[in-house]
Amino acid sequence: MNTGPVVLINTFEVPVGQDEAFLDAWERSRAFLSAQPGYLSTRLHRSLSPSAGFRFINVALWQSPEAFQAATTHPEFTSMSIPFPFHASLYEVIHEETR
Amino acid sequence: MNTGPVVLINTFEVPVGQDEAFLDAWERSRAFLSAQPGYLSTRLHRSLSPSAGFRFINVALWQSPEAFQAATTHPEFTSMSIPFPFHASLYEVIHEETR
Repeated sequence: MNTGPVVLINTFEVPVGQDEAFLDAWERSRAFLSAQPGYLSTRLHRSLSPSAGFRFINVALWQSPEAFQAATTHPEFTSMSIPFPFHASLYEVIHEETR
Repeated sequence: MNTGPVVLINTFEVPVGQDEAFLDAWERSRAFLSAQPGYLSTRLHRSLSPSAGFRFINVALWQSPEAFQAATTHPEFTSMSIPFPFHASLYEVIHEETR
């Protein structure tokens, strides 16, 4: 069982021209989640190409799967959905290398 | 135009039970790419759940889009394809926060 920090990676499908609508919704989610127990950090990526399959990808660190689960099943969070298709899972780093 | 380091994010669809086949192929790619000009670092993530939509996600840092382009269009690289569906794009970090 994983008991150390975990990495949430969330890929968002955002059509060309919808960046602002996405960022508004994402910012509301971020403000809520970053105040929850177990939240450690987040890094939001935007594709260089406006037409990438995943226009935005968020990589966030949480203290444990349980902390992430508690935050994202909170009624206040579940009511503020981001109106774009997304794919979120928890990960562990299995290989890391810097030249 | 982006002239600083860029982030390659590559999401891989790997069916349950195919981890070893993926990791063998990925390791060959990594060995080639990490020796190319402009490669800075890589971090391979594996999902906690074996059935995640993207079983593996690689997040790598390259010095420029041009360096990444040159490495991945090299004939030696294009001949060593990874036999699983993947979605790769270049990104920039637009928001970063640590609690």
